[in-house]
Amino acid sequence: MTTIKDIANRLGISVSTVSKGLNGARDISPELRQVVLDTAAEMGYQTKRMKKETHRKLCILVADMDYEEVGCFGYDLVLGFKQAAYREKWGVQINRITPDIQSTEKYDSYILENGFLGAFLLGFSFRDTWMEQLSITNIPTVLFDDYIRRNPSVGYVGTDNFEGIGMAVEHLTALGHKKIAFLNGFLSSGGFEQRQNAFLIHMEKYGLPLDKELMADGHYTVESIKEHTSHFLRSGATAILCGNDTIAAVVIAECNRLGFSVPDDVSVVGFDDIPASAHLLPPLTTIRQNRLELGKSGYYTLASLLNQVPISRTLLRAQLIARSSTAPCRTRT
Amino acid sequence: MTTIKDIANRLGISVSTVSKGLNGARDISPELRQVVLDTAAEMGYQTKRMKKETHRKLCILVADMDYEEVGCFGYDLVLGFKQAAYREKWGVQINRITPDIQSTEKYDSYILENGFLGAFLLGFSFRDTWMEQLSITNIPTVLFDDYIRRNPSVGYVGTDNFEGIGMAVEHLTALGHKKIAFLNGFLSSGGFEQRQNAFLIHMEKYGLPLDKELMADGHYTVESIKEHTSHFLRSGATAILCGNDTIAAVVIAECNRLGFSVPDDVSVVGFDDIPASAHLLPPLTTIRQNRLELGKSGYYTLASLLNQVPISRTLLRAQLIARSSTAPCRTRT
Repeated sequence: MTTIKDIANRLGISVSTVSKGLNGARDISPELRQVVLDTAAEMGYQTKRMKKETHRKLCILVADMDYEEVGCFGYDLVLGFKQAAYREKWGVQINRITPDIQSTEKYDSYILENGFLGAFLLGFSFRDTWMEQLSITNIPTVLFDDYIRRNPSVGYVGTDNFEGIGMAVEHLTALGHKKIAFLNGFLSSGGFEQRQNAFLIHMEKYGLPLDKELMADGHYTVESIKEHTSHFLRSGATAILCGNDTIAAVVIAECNRLGFSVPDDVSVVGFDDIPASAHLLPPLTTIRQNRLELGKSGYYTLASLLNQVPISRTLLRAQLIARSSTAPCRTRT
Repeated sequence: MTTIKDIANRLGISVSTVSKGLNGARDISPELRQVVLDTAAEMGYQTKRMKKETHRKLCILVADMDYEEVGCFGYDLVLGFKQAAYREKWGVQINRITPDIQSTEKYDSYILENGFLGAFLLGFSFRDTWMEQLSITNIPTVLFDDYIRRNPSVGYVGTDNFEGIGMAVEHLTALGHKKIAFLNGFLSSGGFEQRQNAFLIHMEKYGLPLDKELMADGHYTVESIKEHTSHFLRSGATAILCGNDTIAAVVIAECNRLGFSVPDDVSVVGFDDIPASAHLLPPLTTIRQNRLELGKSGYYTLASLLNQVPISRTLLRAQLIARSSTAPCRTRT
């Protein structure tokens, strides 16, 4: 179990300073106090008062998403939520939810039995049994990247996909690209449909023609991504915008294999900024979803719902991270 | 100046109970504590600690919106923000901002000179000089119903217009209406453009034909609303959806004047649920914007920005309030 000494060692400060930070003493700076609290949250340290108040419990329920290791997509989402909740003296429990659990127990009873007052849901999709039950639940619930219509107890948190895709299209347009292909993920997951609409609207906004040959979406496999990439290149695409960084990584590899240089012959843009993206060859230009901030927004949205303020959506600003996979357009012959 | 005794009188409880509520004592219920804090916020009472901490100041800046009297559109927006901020020990100052102030002083310097750490802006529009400066400000700022692109220091808070208009169209469709007219406000104010898009998308979703003769928008005057109403009725509209309740009130009056009964001959739906809407003849079916909750959301969004979590948009759930201005469609002859 984590002790005050562990936190002090990790931060390289004295035990008494850690103690001041945890107890809100006024003779250390607010910034240092936040670092102490954030680190305590990350290391799972609980003050005596928090142990006493463990009836105040929220949960993070994770279906299909990795979160255990630093660098996983979900790690920072979980951490951000815990850090924000920790400052308000909430206990947070993280449970993996399998399809089995969903088919043997209802969502509401699972939450109530475990004594949770609210939930943050990660990695759920329309295939999950619980998703339908969320239309009628009264449990304050926040979903990452999934939207439930008309239930005031359930909120959505995600990145501003519209603005993010707009930044990507603007970036490519500014580099002179006109034949921009879009290789998207499966539309039924909330985020991808928004990215699709945003692409259509922004292409029109910048006066670029839409070419059905340059658009594809679906449950991708490495093989299908390769086929689409090769088709796009044959159709004259000078840039390929991808629905996420994982798709973009395969696209870059396939371009290289086919003898097309990225970015000299073709520019590639991703979405998400997963940790691997800075280390691709070439490093990937992408739209960052700041997952630590998204986790915090998840908590703030849940806090609003717990206070009977029925937030429908909270969107976080997107950010363009320009690296080396994009360059000025050179028309290929 | 408000004293503890004033609060006690208003609530009909003892001075010592008020004092317990203000000081967070544990032997009164959390619900009562909240009522005490909310009332103190409404009456402008400050604890000694708050007076000491008046360097922690936020502001609400009001351009073109009434907020002083109970029942004004802005009153609950201001109150909700103050109540939420009060719980976190913020001082809140409310200033009226004229075009003169905006032309003699820059937004940033106005905020800094007054010692505000963040701002909630009500009733600003594209005509206001400060709106352009908001694209580049670093001051944590939240706008009600106005959106600033790409500046991570500025957030938007508003009602989920898309879902709200969807509810209105669904309500009318369920009553058998097919010829639904839409009389909208001036599109350049954020909310009206979203309502317009939502109308187009939901008419298509319910398989209803779009008829240009049944759509209008603009800076309305009483005269122009009357003209549009009469044109809609001649074009066979059986329902008129309005961009806000003020438009709807004039539409109802004009229908009556022309000898069309609301709702027997024509159904009318508004948007906002301003206090007067329940007292129209007939009482207006409308989409409620919960302004108290919007004010609270304004504070929560500003708190996120102050914590360096760059929220782009916070949307509150809309709510259909079905009153007597809508009824099943009877085709007129």
